[in-house]
Amino acid sequence: MIFCGIDDSEFIRGKVPMTKQEVRILTLTKARIAPSDIVYDIGAGTGSISIEAARIAHEGKVFAIERNPAGISLIKENMKKFQVENIEVVSGEAPGALAGLPNCDAVIIGGSGRNLDDILDIVHERLKVGGRVILNCITIQTISSCLEYLRAHKDEFDYEAIQVQVNRLKAVGPYDMADAVNPIYIVTAIKKV
Amino acid sequence: MIFCGIDDSEFIRGKVPMTKQEVRILTLTKARIAPSDIVYDIGAGTGSISIEAARIAHEGKVFAIERNPAGISLIKENMKKFQVENIEVVSGEAPGALAGLPNCDAVIIGGSGRNLDDILDIVHERLKVGGRVILNCITIQTISSCLEYLRAHKDEFDYEAIQVQVNRLKAVGPYDMADAVNPIYIVTAIKKV
Amino acid sequence: MIFCGIDDSEFIRGKVPMTKQEVRILTLTKARIAPSDIVYDIGAGTGSISIEAARIAHEGKVFAIERNPAGISLIKENMKKFQVENIEVVSGEAPGALAGLPNCDAVIIGGSGRNLDDILDIVHERLKVGGRVILNCITIQTISSCLEYLRAHKDEFDYEAIQVQVNRLKAVGPYDMADAVNPIYIVTAIKKV
Amino acid sequence: MIFCGIDDSEFIRGKVPMTKQEVRILTLTKARIAPSDIVYDIGAGTGSISIEAARIAHEGKVFAIERNPAGISLIKENMKKFQVENIEVVSGEAPGALAGLPNCDAVIIGGSGRNLDDILDIVHERLKVGGRVILNCITIQTISSCLEYLRAHKDEFDYEAIQVQVNRLKAVGPYDMADAVNPIYIVTAIKKV
Repeated sequence: MIFCGIDDSEFIRGKVPMTKQEVRILTLTKARIAPSDIVYDIGAGTGSISIEAARIAHEGKVFAIERNPAGISLIKENMKKFQVENIEVVSGEAPGALAGLPNCDAVIIGGSGRNLDDILDIVHERLKVGGRVILNCITIQTISSCLEYLRAHKDEFDYEAIQVQVNRLKAVGPYDMADAVNPIYIVTAIKKV
Repeated sequence: MIFCGIDDSEFIRGKVPMTKQEVRILTLTKARIAPSDIVYDIGAGTGSISIEAARIAHEGKVFAIERNPAGISLIKENMKKFQVENIEVVSGEAPGALAGLPNCDAVIIGGSGRNLDDILDIVHERLKVGGRVILNCITIQTISSCLEYLRAHKDEFDYEAIQVQVNRLKAVGPYDMADAVNPIYIVTAIKKV
Repeated sequence: MIFCGIDDSEFIRGKVPMTKQEVRILTLTKARIAPSDIVYDIGAGTGSISIEAARIAHEGKVFAIERNPAGISLIKENMKKFQVENIEVVSGEAPGALAGLPNCDAVIIGGSGRNLDDILDIVHERLKVGGRVILNCITIQTISSCLEYLRAHKDEFDYEAIQVQVNRLKAVGPYDMADAVNPIYIVTAIKKV
Repeated sequence: MIFCGIDDSEFIRGKVPMTKQEVRILTLTKARIAPSDIVYDIGAGTGSISIEAARIAHEGKVFAIERNPAGISLIKENMKKFQVENIEVVSGEAPGALAGLPNCDAVIIGGSGRNLDDILDIVHERLKVGGRVILNCITIQTISSCLEYLRAHKDEFDYEAIQVQVNRLKAVGPYDMADAVNPIYIVTAIKKV
């Protein structure tokens, strides 16, 4: 069984932006999800991360929080396609949409609107000690807010952050030339206490 | 259980160059190793890839081929540290050192000296159909030779290739600044027939 | 005569961090300095940018503002080495150190401490309409503050911003391998009114 | 007067690929073109490099070699637009098209088809000692051939090479997000003897 690394082309996508395979792999691996984990996927988009998280946490459960109806449909379609049942789609926006959910072992934040601080406050309450929050930040404002929060909450979280850039080689006749993918910041926050 | 994603700092390293965590994760994931797989790790270095591959292929076996005695010692030390037993260290240089080994399901090539074509010829004989060879190329000459071989062997292999660059954010007082890691090309070749 | 592009190794450097050649070239070119221009170089460091700016503005003048005594010495040594006389070294920290200076045609900000907003306010007063401010930002906090200021002052400035990453190929025996240089954000702000 | 750094949007482009501003700046600066220089621009495309080279070499001359009729038209249109007269458009393919040209002080190679070795042989004959050849390589095969040639001709040329990647920040509502530009290798070869 393959735990993560589904090709981008295998997901049903519509026009909703999707995390690219390499970023998905790094995000999921850095989250250190175990088979029986409860995982929040906040801003689940097409559900590509939720699907792979659910296959890793095959005895646990993934809560896919998404506010966009087009995204919600895609998550459900992808669940059918990949025959994954341990995802509960939560329609709405974090932090509000997190209200009734059980505590969790890992959190992935792909989209936070402008509520990042409030989301991280609640995530800290819900997450087990040693649990990990992985944030994918594609804007300067989001990585900046994220670092500002984590620096102000050094007693609650340790963190590390990377920027990743992938260039895909594309064959054009006898040549292979680089086709750039937009870079992304991946932040790993680990709950200390 | 964590399948891959051990931190770089946890490996015993000496002065042997080591694949960085993010590249290790992408390499292992793209290899699509299954629990009972036979894996070759050619140019195993410190054994960081072998250790993680052996934990994924926990019912299978990893052959760690390494010509450098310092590397061989490190692989053995890391096996002890991570309590991994399903690695067989093969002292020597590919392709010669591959002589007595059983057929395989996945191959990782971190170092090939100048014998890449000969290694890929033998790897093709040994690999199952649908099996994957993942090559990490840090020099222009290696990525170029690798693509030349794969273009000349289109009937035997499909391939895709990416370049990955990671910048690690480093906290310096109130600031987070990027610390660049050298980029690498990761090639995935899939045996067609 | 070469207008910009002095090799890094030609500057006297000490232990003061120096803008790398490629970033220096892009910074100076985006500043669109003319021969008779008055230029501020804020956070001048070793003076590498000031030296090149002074050679372009050979009928004008460069004010090199630097608070670090080691930097001030290096700027003076580099002025001697490159026989450049149209630089006035201003010891101190912006915005205070900008007090007595004449109006200007171009501004380069390599280091701003934590006074970026105050500096940009004064720079706007001093800069001619159509004049350019080029900011080199190596931290997330600086690029973020810079963008926040420019978004809040859309009536005063237009802007564009890039991130640049350079990998230098290093010959190692028969191979050429990439040696990564830390990436940097370069912001160009153009005074509208 | 601005010596280089024309915005991409100012050039007439059609569908011919154009070197991006930052790469154009680095290429021209590394070429160290002087006012009275003779410059070859081999594979001139839209002429964006030729136009800027001709403004630097305003007392000299640029030979823009291009085989594609659409490119040749664009070069001529851009010459009119930027009122540059010291460019001679040479229709054809190097090395053949270099036949009747005078010796030169600097050479820029943006496109070489598959004749790179032959082109570099002739360029070496024509170039002054200390003169520079700048090669823009967007494919693995081209950078590889280029390095192979330069390694085989160490007595004739010194070289350095970089890979440059630019991400352009794009404002989307309240956010600035990176928009990746394809990376490129820039090789500088300096004629020794």
